Amino acid sequence: MNVLLVYAHPEPASFGAALRDRGVQALRDAGHTVQVSDLYAMGFNPVASGADFTQRRFPARLQYDREQKHAQQHQAFAPDIQAEIDKLLWCELLILQFPLWWFSVPAILKGWLDRVFANGVAYGPGRRLETGGLRGRSAMLALTTGCFEGMTAPDGLLGDLNAILWHLHFGTFAYAGLRVLPPFTAFAVQYGTPAQQQDMLDAYASHLSRLDTLQPLFFHPQSDFGPDWRLRADVQPATVAQRRLP
Amino acid sequence: MNVLLVYAHPEPASFGAALRDRGVQALRDAGHTVQVSDLYAMGFNPVASGADFTQRRFPARLQYDREQKHAQQHQAFAPDIQAEIDKLLWCELLILQFPLWWFSVPAILKGWLDRVFANGVAYGPGRRLETGGLRGRSAMLALTTGCFEGMTAPDGLLGDLNAILWHLHFGTFAYAGLRVLPPFTAFAVQYGTPAQQQDMLDAYASHLSRLDTLQPLFFHPQSDFGPDWRLRADVQPATVAQRRLP
Repeated sequence: MNVLLVYAHPEPASFGAALRDRGVQALRDAGHTVQVSDLYAMGFNPVASGADFTQRRFPARLQYDREQKHAQQHQAFAPDIQAEIDKLLWCELLILQFPLWWFSVPAILKGWLDRVFANGVAYGPGRRLETGGLRGRSAMLALTTGCFEGMTAPDGLLGDLNAILWHLHFGTFAYAGLRVLPPFTAFAVQYGTPAQQQDMLDAYASHLSRLDTLQPLFFHPQSDFGPDWRLRADVQPATVAQRRLP
Repeated sequence: MNVLLVYAHPEPASFGAALRDRGVQALRDAGHTVQVSDLYAMGFNPVASGADFTQRRFPARLQYDREQKHAQQHQAFAPDIQAEIDKLLWCELLILQFPLWWFSVPAILKGWLDRVFANGVAYGPGRRLETGGLRGRSAMLALTTGCFEGMTAPDGLLGDLNAILWHLHFGTFAYAGLRVLPPFTAFAVQYGTPAQQQDMLDAYASHLSRLDTLQPLFFHPQSDFGPDWRLRADVQPATVAQRRLP
Protein backbone atom coordinates (compact mmCIF):
# COMPACT_ATOMS: atom_id res chain seq x y z
CA MET A 1 0.00 0.00 0.00
CA ASN A 2 0.90 3.64 -0.41
CA VAL A 3 0.87 5.18 3.06
CA LEU A 4 0.88 8.90 3.89
CA LEU A 5 1.90 9.69 7.46
CA VAL A 6 1.07 13.23 8.53
CA TYR A 7 3.05 13.88 11.68
CA ALA A 8 2.86 16.81 14.08
CA HIS A 9 5.18 17.22 17.07
CA PRO A 10 7.35 20.22 17.94
CA GLU A 11 10.28 18.24 19.43
CA PRO A 12 12.53 16.11 17.18
CA ALA A 13 13.81 14.11 20.19
CA SER A 14 10.35 13.27 21.57
CA PHE A 15 8.80 9.86 22.15
CA GLY A 16 6.44 10.87 19.34
CA ALA A 17 9.41 11.04 16.97
CA ALA A 18 10.53 7.57 18.07
CA LEU A 19 7.00 6.30 17.46
CA ARG A 20 6.98 7.89 14.01
CA ASP A 21 10.30 6.26 13.09
CA ARG A 22 9.24 2.86 14.39
CA GLY A 23 5.98 3.10 12.48
CA VAL A 24 7.67 4.03 9.22
CA GLN A 25 10.11 1.14 9.66
CA ALA A 26 7.33 -1.35 10.39
CA LEU A 27 5.35 -0.21 7.36
CA ARG A 28 8.38 -0.42 5.04
CA ASP A 29 9.32 -3.84 6.46
CA ALA A 30 5.82 -5.00 5.51
CA GLY A 31 6.40 -3.86 1.93
CA HIS A 32 4.42 -0.61 1.99
CA THR A 33 5.62 2.63 0.41
CA VAL A 34 5.60 5.52 2.88
CA GLN A 35 5.65 9.28 2.51
CA VAL A 36 5.90 11.47 5.61
CA SER A 37 4.62 15.02 5.96
CA ASP A 38 6.43 16.26 9.07
CA LEU A 39 4.46 19.46 9.58
CA TYR A 40 6.77 21.15 12.09
CA ALA A 41 9.85 20.31 10.04
CA MET A 42 8.12 21.66 6.91
CA GLY A 43 7.07 24.86 8.68
CA PHE A 44 3.57 24.09 7.43
CA ASN A 45 1.21 27.08 7.52
CA PRO A 46 -2.04 26.03 9.23
CA VAL A 47 -4.01 29.24 8.75
CA ALA A 48 -6.63 29.03 5.99
CA SER A 49 -6.94 32.34 4.12
CA GLY A 50 -7.49 33.94 0.73
CA ALA A 51 -3.78 33.49 0.04
CA ASP A 52 -4.48 29.77 -0.38
CA PHE A 53 -5.64 30.34 -3.97
CA THR A 54 -3.69 31.56 -7.00
CA GLN A 55 -6.92 32.85 -8.51
CA ARG A 56 -10.29 33.56 -6.97
CA ARG A 57 -13.84 33.08 -8.20
CA PHE A 58 -15.18 35.70 -5.75
CA PRO A 59 -12.29 38.10 -5.09
CA ALA A 60 -14.36 40.60 -3.11
CA ARG A 61 -15.46 38.35 -0.26
CA LEU A 62 -13.81 35.13 0.81
CA GLN A 63 -16.06 32.08 0.94
CA TYR A 64 -13.38 29.57 1.72
CA ASP A 65 -15.14 26.34 0.75
CA ARG A 66 -16.42 27.79 -2.53
CA GLU A 67 -12.91 28.96 -3.44
CA GLN A 68 -11.64 25.46 -2.65
CA LYS A 69 -14.12 24.05 -5.14
CA HIS A 70 -13.06 26.62 -7.73
CA ALA A 71 -9.38 25.91 -7.06
CA GLN A 72 -9.93 22.18 -7.50
CA GLN A 73 -11.53 22.82 -10.89
CA HIS A 74 -8.90 25.32 -12.06
CA GLN A 75 -5.66 24.05 -10.49
CA ALA A 76 -5.60 27.19 -8.35
CA PHE A 77 -4.45 25.89 -4.97
CA ALA A 78 -1.34 27.46 -3.45
CA PRO A 79 1.64 25.15 -4.05
CA ASP A 80 1.95 24.02 -0.41
CA ILE A 81 -1.67 22.84 -0.44
CA GLN A 82 -1.48 21.20 -3.87
CA ALA A 83 1.61 19.24 -2.79
CA GLU A 84 -0.31 17.81 0.17
CA ILE A 85 -3.41 17.07 -1.91
CA ASP A 86 -1.20 15.16 -4.35
CA LYS A 87 0.14 13.03 -1.49
CA LEU A 88 -3.37 12.51 -0.12
CA LEU A 89 -4.70 11.29 -3.46
CA TRP A 90 -1.61 9.10 -3.91
CA CYS A 91 -2.10 7.25 -0.64
CA GLU A 92 -4.27 4.25 0.13
CA LEU A 93 -3.83 4.66 3.89
CA LEU A 94 -3.63 7.99 5.69
CA ILE A 95 -2.18 8.03 9.21
CA LEU A 96 -2.32 11.12 11.41
CA GLN A 97 0.17 10.93 14.30
CA PHE A 98 0.12 13.55 17.03
CA PRO A 99 0.10 14.26 20.75
CA LEU A 100 -3.49 14.72 21.98
CA TRP A 101 -3.80 18.40 22.91
CA TRP A 102 -7.11 19.57 24.34
CA PHE A 103 -8.79 16.33 23.20
CA SER A 104 -7.79 16.98 19.58
CA VAL A 105 -4.92 17.50 17.15
CA PRO A 106 -2.34 20.30 17.54
CA ALA A 107 -3.24 23.43 15.57
CA ILE A 108 -0.64 22.76 12.88
CA LEU A 109 -2.39 19.47 12.07
CA LYS A 110 -5.88 20.96 12.31
CA GLY A 111 -4.74 23.46 9.69
CA TRP A 112 -3.53 20.65 7.46
CA LEU A 113 -7.09 19.26 7.58
CA ASP A 114 -8.69 22.70 7.09
CA ARG A 115 -6.59 23.44 4.00
CA VAL A 116 -5.93 20.00 2.42
CA PHE A 117 -9.25 18.17 3.04
CA ALA A 118 -10.68 20.61 0.53
CA ASN A 119 -14.15 20.95 -0.93
CA GLY A 120 -14.00 19.22 -4.30
CA VAL A 121 -11.31 16.86 -3.03
CA ALA A 122 -12.43 15.30 0.27
CA TYR A 123 -16.12 16.11 -0.04
CA GLY A 124 -18.61 18.08 -2.08
CA PRO A 125 -22.29 18.36 -2.89
CA GLY A 126 -23.69 14.86 -2.41
CA ARG A 127 -20.21 13.53 -1.72
CA ARG A 128 -19.84 12.54 1.91
CA LEU A 129 -19.74 9.36 3.98
CA GLU A 130 -20.08 6.42 1.58
CA THR A 131 -19.96 8.82 -1.38
CA GLY A 132 -17.13 10.96 0.08
CA GLY A 133 -14.27 12.18 -2.05
CA LEU A 134 -11.72 9.87 -0.41
CA ARG A 135 -13.81 6.68 -0.52
CA GLY A 136 -11.86 3.51 -1.19
CA ARG A 137 -9.01 4.65 1.05
CA SER A 138 -8.40 3.99 4.75
CA ALA A 139 -7.31 6.21 7.62
CA MET A 140 -6.03 5.75 11.14
CA LEU A 141 -5.09 7.88 14.12
CA ALA A 142 -1.88 7.24 16.08
CA LEU A 143 -1.84 9.35 19.21
CA THR A 144 0.26 9.90 22.28
CA THR A 145 -1.24 11.20 25.49
CA GLY A 146 -0.38 11.80 29.11
CA CYS A 147 -3.60 10.28 30.39
CA PHE A 148 -4.10 6.75 31.66
CA GLU A 149 -6.09 4.23 29.62
CA GLY A 150 -8.87 3.82 32.18
CA MET A 151 -9.63 7.53 31.94
CA THR A 152 -10.93 7.02 28.39
CA ALA A 153 -13.08 3.97 29.12
CA PRO A 154 -16.82 4.46 28.55
CA ASP A 155 -17.17 5.26 32.27
CA GLY A 156 -13.76 6.94 32.56
CA LEU A 157 -12.94 10.40 33.89
CA LEU A 158 -12.36 11.90 30.43
CA GLY A 159 -15.24 10.21 28.65
CA ASP A 160 -15.25 7.42 26.08
CA LEU A 161 -12.32 7.59 23.66
CA ASN A 162 -14.93 7.26 20.89
CA ALA A 163 -16.55 10.50 22.05
CA ILE A 164 -13.21 12.27 22.39
CA LEU A 165 -12.27 11.29 18.83
CA TRP A 166 -15.73 11.61 17.24
CA HIS A 167 -14.83 14.85 15.44
CA LEU A 168 -11.82 13.14 13.85
CA HIS A 169 -12.99 9.57 13.29
CA PHE A 170 -16.48 10.39 12.12
CA GLY A 171 -16.50 14.12 11.46
CA THR A 172 -13.33 14.10 9.37
CA PHE A 173 -12.36 10.61 8.20
CA ALA A 174 -15.75 8.96 7.73
CA TYR A 175 -17.31 12.19 6.44
CA ALA A 176 -14.70 12.25 3.66
CA GLY A 177 -15.48 8.62 2.79
CA LEU A 178 -12.45 7.03 4.45
CA ARG A 179 -12.61 3.59 6.06
CA VAL A 180 -11.65 4.23 9.68
CA LEU A 181 -9.22 1.75 11.23
CA PRO A 182 -9.02 1.42 15.04
CA PRO A 183 -6.62 3.99 16.48
CA PHE A 184 -3.32 3.27 18.16
CA THR A 185 -3.01 5.12 21.45
CA ALA A 186 0.16 5.34 23.55
CA PHE A 187 -1.09 6.27 27.02
CA ALA A 188 0.81 7.98 29.86
CA VAL A 189 3.89 8.40 27.69
CA GLN A 190 5.67 10.79 30.03
CA TYR A 191 5.39 8.41 32.97
CA GLY A 192 6.79 5.39 31.18
CA THR A 193 10.13 3.78 31.97
CA PRO A 194 12.43 3.14 28.98
CA ALA A 195 11.23 -0.48 29.01
CA GLN A 196 7.57 0.60 28.99
CA GLN A 197 8.25 3.02 26.16
CA GLN A 198 9.92 0.20 24.23
CA ASP A 199 6.81 -1.91 24.80
CA MET A 200 4.67 0.90 23.36
CA LEU A 201 6.88 1.08 20.25
CA ASP A 202 6.58 -2.69 19.85
CA ALA A 203 2.81 -2.52 20.30
CA TYR A 204 2.60 0.12 17.55
CA ALA A 205 4.67 -2.00 15.17
CA SER A 206 2.39 -4.93 15.97
CA HIS A 207 -0.73 -2.82 15.34
CA LEU A 208 0.67 -1.77 11.94
CA SER A 209 1.56 -5.37 11.07
CA ARG A 210 -2.11 -6.35 11.49
CA LEU A 211 -3.65 -3.65 9.26
CA ASP A 212 -5.35 -6.25 7.10
CA THR A 213 -7.11 -7.82 10.05
CA LEU A 214 -8.22 -4.66 11.88
CA GLN A 215 -11.99 -4.29 11.81
CA PRO A 216 -12.97 -0.78 10.71
CA LEU A 217 -15.15 1.32 13.01
CA PHE A 218 -18.83 1.37 12.16
CA PHE A 219 -20.61 4.56 11.14
CA HIS A 220 -24.08 4.78 9.70
CA PRO A 221 -24.01 5.44 5.93
CA GLN A 222 -26.15 8.20 4.43
CA SER A 223 -28.52 5.52 3.20
CA ASP A 224 -29.54 4.82 6.81
CA PHE A 225 -31.06 8.30 7.06
CA GLY A 226 -34.34 9.68 5.78
CA PRO A 227 -34.95 12.89 3.84
CA ASP A 228 -35.17 14.73 7.19
CA TRP A 229 -31.53 13.68 7.92
CA ARG A 230 -32.72 11.51 10.83
CA LEU A 231 -32.05 7.81 11.22
CA ARG A 232 -34.78 5.76 9.56
CA ALA A 233 -37.10 3.94 11.96
CA ASP A 234 -36.14 0.55 10.53
CA VAL A 235 -32.42 1.00 11.26
CA GLN A 236 -30.91 -0.18 14.53
CA PRO A 237 -29.07 2.84 15.96
CA ALA A 238 -25.40 2.71 16.92
CA THR A 239 -24.49 5.05 19.76
CA VAL A 240 -21.32 7.08 19.88
CA ALA A 241 -19.93 4.73 22.51
CA GLN A 242 -20.98 1.52 20.74
CA ARG A 243 -20.05 2.15 17.17
CA ARG A 244 -19.13 -1.38 16.32
CA LEU A 245 -22.49 -2.92 15.56
CA PRO A 246 -22.70 -6.69 16.08
CA MET B 1 -19.43 40.86 33.69
CA ASN B 2 -16.09 41.01 31.93
CA VAL B 3 -16.47 39.11 28.66
CA LEU B 4 -13.65 37.94 26.41
CA LEU B 5 -14.76 37.08 22.88
CA VAL B 6 -12.19 35.09 20.93
CA TYR B 7 -13.22 35.28 17.31
CA ALA B 8 -11.87 33.39 14.30
CA HIS B 9 -13.04 34.01 10.75
CA PRO B 10 -10.92 34.84 7.71
CA GLU B 11 -13.45 37.16 6.02
CA PRO B 12 -14.26 40.58 7.53
CA ALA B 13 -17.52 40.82 5.53
CA SER B 14 -18.83 37.39 6.56
CA PHE B 15 -22.04 36.54 8.38
CA GLY B 16 -19.72 35.52 11.22
CA ALA B 17 -18.48 39.10 11.45
CA ALA B 18 -22.08 40.36 11.61
CA LEU B 19 -22.79 37.84 14.37
CA ARG B 20 -19.69 39.00 16.25
CA ASP B 21 -20.75 42.65 16.03
CA ARG B 22 -24.32 41.90 17.07
CA GLY B 23 -23.08 39.87 20.02
CA VAL B 24 -20.70 42.57 21.21
CA GLN B 25 -23.49 45.14 20.96
CA ALA B 26 -25.94 42.95 22.88
CA LEU B 27 -23.41 42.33 25.64
CA ARG B 28 -22.54 46.02 25.96
CA ASP B 29 -26.22 46.96 25.93
CA ALA B 30 -26.66 44.61 28.90
CA GLY B 31 -23.91 46.43 30.78
CA HIS B 32 -21.07 43.97 30.27
CA THR B 33 -17.51 44.99 29.45
CA VAL B 34 -16.22 43.23 26.32
CA GLN B 35 -12.76 42.61 24.93
CA VAL B 36 -12.41 40.96 21.51
CA SER B 37 -9.45 38.90 20.32
CA ASP B 38 -9.96 38.83 16.54
CA LEU B 39 -7.38 36.18 15.73
CA TYR B 40 -7.21 36.70 11.95
CA ALA B 41 -7.00 40.48 12.34
CA MET B 42 -4.24 40.05 14.95
CA GLY B 43 -2.30 37.65 12.74
CA PHE B 44 -2.27 35.32 15.73
CA ASN B 45 0.35 32.57 15.51
CA PRO B 46 -1.32 29.23 16.29
CA VAL B 47 1.79 27.01 16.21
CA ALA B 48 3.03 25.98 19.67
CA SER B 49 6.84 25.81 19.76
CA GLY B 50 9.92 26.47 21.86
CA ALA B 51 9.77 30.11 20.76
CA ASP B 52 6.75 30.51 23.06
CA PHE B 53 9.05 30.96 26.06
CA THR B 54 11.56 33.71 26.84
CA GLN B 55 13.52 31.28 29.01
CA ARG B 56 13.48 27.51 29.19
CA ARG B 57 13.75 25.09 32.06
CA PHE B 58 14.85 22.27 29.75
CA PRO B 59 16.54 23.95 26.76
CA ALA B 60 17.80 20.72 25.20
CA ARG B 61 14.46 19.00 24.61
CA LEU B 62 11.08 20.69 24.41
CA GLN B 63 8.43 19.34 26.76
CA TYR B 64 5.79 21.89 25.96
CA ASP B 65 3.51 21.51 28.99
CA ARG B 66 6.43 21.51 31.43
CA GLU B 67 7.79 24.70 29.88
CA GLN B 68 4.34 26.25 30.20
CA LYS B 69 4.39 25.49 33.90
CA HIS B 70 7.87 26.99 34.19
CA ALA B 71 6.83 30.05 32.19
CA GLN B 72 3.83 30.59 34.44
CA GLN B 73 6.09 30.56 37.48
CA HIS B 74 8.77 32.82 35.95
CA GLN B 75 6.81 35.22 33.73
CA ALA B 76 8.48 33.64 30.74
CA PHE B 77 5.65 33.41 28.19
CA ALA B 78 6.18 35.11 24.84
CA PRO B 79 4.39 38.48 24.83
CA ASP B 80 1.61 37.40 22.45
CA ILE B 81 0.69 34.53 24.79
CA GLN B 82 0.95 36.57 27.99
CA ALA B 83 -1.37 39.22 26.52
CA GLU B 84 -4.03 36.56 25.86
CA ILE B 85 -3.55 34.94 29.28
CA ASP B 86 -4.08 38.36 30.86
CA LYS B 87 -7.38 38.74 28.98
CA LEU B 88 -8.41 35.21 29.92
CA LEU B 89 -7.78 35.80 33.63
CA TRP B 90 -9.55 39.17 33.39
CA CYS B 91 -12.76 37.70 32.01
CA GLU B 92 -15.69 36.14 33.83
CA LEU B 93 -17.20 34.80 30.62
CA LEU B 94 -15.20 33.42 27.68
CA ILE B 95 -16.94 33.12 24.32
CA LEU B 96 -15.35 31.34 21.37
CA GLN B 97 -17.00 32.28 18.07
CA PHE B 98 -16.05 30.44 14.89
CA PRO B 99 -17.29 28.63 11.80
CA LEU B 100 -17.40 24.86 12.45
CA TRP B 101 -14.64 23.35 10.27
CA TRP B 102 -14.25 19.59 10.31
CA PHE B 103 -16.45 19.35 13.43
CA SER B 104 -14.13 21.68 15.37
CA VAL B 105 -12.56 25.12 15.53
CA PRO B 106 -10.39 26.57 12.75
CA ALA B 107 -6.66 25.96 13.29
CA ILE B 108 -5.99 29.56 14.31
CA LEU B 109 -8.40 29.13 17.23
CA LYS B 110 -7.12 25.66 18.13
CA GLY B 111 -3.69 27.24 18.41
CA TRP B 112 -5.06 29.91 20.74
CA LEU B 113 -6.23 27.06 23.01
CA ASP B 114 -2.97 25.12 22.64
CA ARG B 115 -0.85 28.16 23.61
CA VAL B 116 -3.09 30.18 25.98
CA PHE B 117 -4.87 27.43 27.97
CA ALA B 118 -1.47 26.75 29.48
CA ASN B 119 -0.36 24.31 32.13
CA GLY B 120 -0.22 26.31 35.35
CA VAL B 121 -2.97 28.61 34.10
CA ALA B 122 -5.91 26.54 32.87
CA TYR B 123 -4.97 23.27 34.55
CA GLY B 124 -2.18 21.58 36.46
CA PRO B 125 -1.45 18.66 38.76
CA GLY B 126 -4.69 18.00 40.63
CA ARG B 127 -6.26 21.03 38.98
CA ARG B 128 -8.94 19.97 36.52
CA LEU B 129 -12.72 19.87 36.30
CA GLU B 130 -14.10 21.30 39.57
CA THR B 131 -10.54 22.15 40.66
CA GLY B 132 -9.47 23.49 37.25
CA GLY B 133 -7.45 26.65 36.90
CA LEU B 134 -10.34 28.65 35.42
CA ARG B 135 -12.99 27.60 37.94
CA GLY B 136 -15.46 30.31 38.89
CA ARG B 137 -15.67 31.53 35.31
CA SER B 138 -18.08 30.57 32.51
CA ALA B 139 -17.60 29.75 28.84
CA MET B 140 -19.78 29.44 25.77
CA LEU B 141 -19.41 28.45 22.13
CA ALA B 142 -21.02 30.52 19.36
CA LEU B 143 -20.74 28.72 16.07
CA THR B 144 -21.84 29.06 12.49
CA THR B 145 -22.25 26.05 10.24
CA GLY B 146 -23.54 25.07 6.84
CA CYS B 147 -25.40 22.04 8.14
CA PHE B 148 -29.08 21.83 9.01
CA GLU B 149 -30.21 21.55 12.61
CA GLY B 150 -31.77 18.11 12.25
CA MET B 151 -28.40 16.72 11.16
CA THR B 152 -27.05 17.27 14.69
CA ALA B 153 -30.01 15.76 16.55
CA PRO B 154 -29.19 12.64 18.60
CA ASP B 155 -30.31 10.52 15.63
CA GLY B 156 -29.09 12.98 12.98
CA LEU B 157 -26.76 12.34 10.07
CA LEU B 158 -23.76 14.04 11.70
CA GLY B 159 -24.30 12.71 15.22
CA ASP B 160 -25.43 14.43 18.37
CA LEU B 161 -24.19 18.03 18.67
CA ASN B 162 -23.04 17.05 22.18
CA ALA B 163 -20.75 14.40 20.69
CA ILE B 164 -19.47 16.78 18.00
CA LEU B 165 -18.57 19.39 20.62
CA TRP B 166 -17.42 17.00 23.40
CA HIS B 167 -13.75 17.84 22.86
CA LEU B 168 -14.52 21.55 23.32
CA HIS B 169 -17.31 21.57 25.90
CA PHE B 170 -15.94 18.87 28.15
CA GLY B 171 -12.36 18.31 27.01
CA THR B 172 -11.43 21.99 27.02
CA PHE B 173 -13.93 24.14 28.95
CA ALA B 174 -15.04 21.76 31.70
CA TYR B 175 -11.56 20.26 32.04
CA ALA B 176 -10.19 23.74 32.81
CA GLY B 177 -12.90 24.26 35.42
CA LEU B 178 -15.18 26.50 33.39
CA ARG B 179 -18.96 26.42 33.78
CA VAL B 180 -20.23 25.53 30.30
CA LEU B 181 -23.21 27.50 29.04
CA PRO B 182 -25.37 26.06 26.24
CA PRO B 183 -23.92 26.95 22.83
CA PHE B 184 -25.48 29.24 20.26
CA THR B 185 -25.50 27.64 16.83
CA ALA B 186 -26.42 29.42 13.59
CA PHE B 187 -27.30 26.61 11.20
CA ALA B 188 -27.26 26.62 7.39
CA VAL B 189 -25.92 30.16 7.31
CA GLN B 190 -25.03 30.14 3.62
CA TYR B 191 -28.55 29.12 2.60
CA GLY B 192 -30.34 31.81 4.60
CA THR B 193 -32.22 34.71 3.07
CA PRO B 194 -31.37 38.16 4.44
CA ALA B 195 -34.49 37.93 6.62
CA GLN B 196 -33.44 34.52 7.96
CA GLN B 197 -29.96 35.82 8.68
CA GLN B 198 -31.51 38.75 10.54
CA ASP B 199 -33.54 36.26 12.57
CA MET B 200 -30.32 34.41 13.48
CA LEU B 201 -28.69 37.65 14.64
CA ASP B 202 -31.76 38.42 16.75
CA ALA B 203 -31.72 34.91 18.21
CA TYR B 204 -28.07 35.35 19.21
CA ALA B 205 -28.80 38.68 20.91
CA SER B 206 -31.69 37.00 22.72
CA HIS B 207 -29.43 34.10 23.80
CA LEU B 208 -26.90 36.57 25.19
CA SER B 209 -29.61 38.54 27.00
CA ARG B 210 -30.56 35.37 28.91
CA LEU B 211 -27.07 34.43 30.15
CA ASP B 212 -28.22 34.47 33.77
CA THR B 213 -30.99 32.00 33.11
CA LEU B 214 -29.13 29.53 30.89
CA GLN B 215 -28.67 26.19 32.63
CA PRO B 216 -25.05 25.03 32.41
CA LEU B 217 -24.31 21.66 30.81
CA PHE B 218 -23.74 18.82 33.25
CA PHE B 219 -20.42 17.01 33.49
CA HIS B 220 -19.40 14.59 36.19
CA PRO B 221 -16.97 16.15 38.67
CA GLN B 222 -13.78 14.33 39.64
CA SER B 223 -15.44 13.43 42.92
CA ASP B 224 -17.80 11.10 41.02
CA PHE B 225 -14.85 8.89 40.04
CA GLY B 226 -12.94 6.31 42.01
CA PRO B 227 -9.16 5.91 42.34
CA ASP B 228 -9.22 3.83 39.14
CA TRP B 229 -10.59 6.90 37.26
CA ARG B 230 -13.89 5.06 36.62
CA LEU B 231 -17.31 6.30 37.63
CA ARG B 232 -18.20 5.10 41.11
CA ALA B 233 -20.89 2.44 41.26
CA ASP B 234 -23.17 4.65 43.36
CA VAL B 235 -23.23 7.46 40.78
CA GLN B 236 -25.90 7.62 38.11
CA PRO B 237 -24.03 7.89 34.80
CA ALA B 238 -24.74 10.69 32.33
CA THR B 239 -24.14 9.73 28.72
CA VAL B 240 -22.55 11.97 26.14
CA ALA B 241 -25.93 12.52 24.56
CA GLN B 242 -27.78 13.12 27.84
CA ARG B 243 -25.46 15.36 29.76
CA ARG B 244 -28.16 17.35 31.46
CA LEU B 245 -29.05 15.10 34.34
CA PRO B 246 -32.55 15.54 35.72
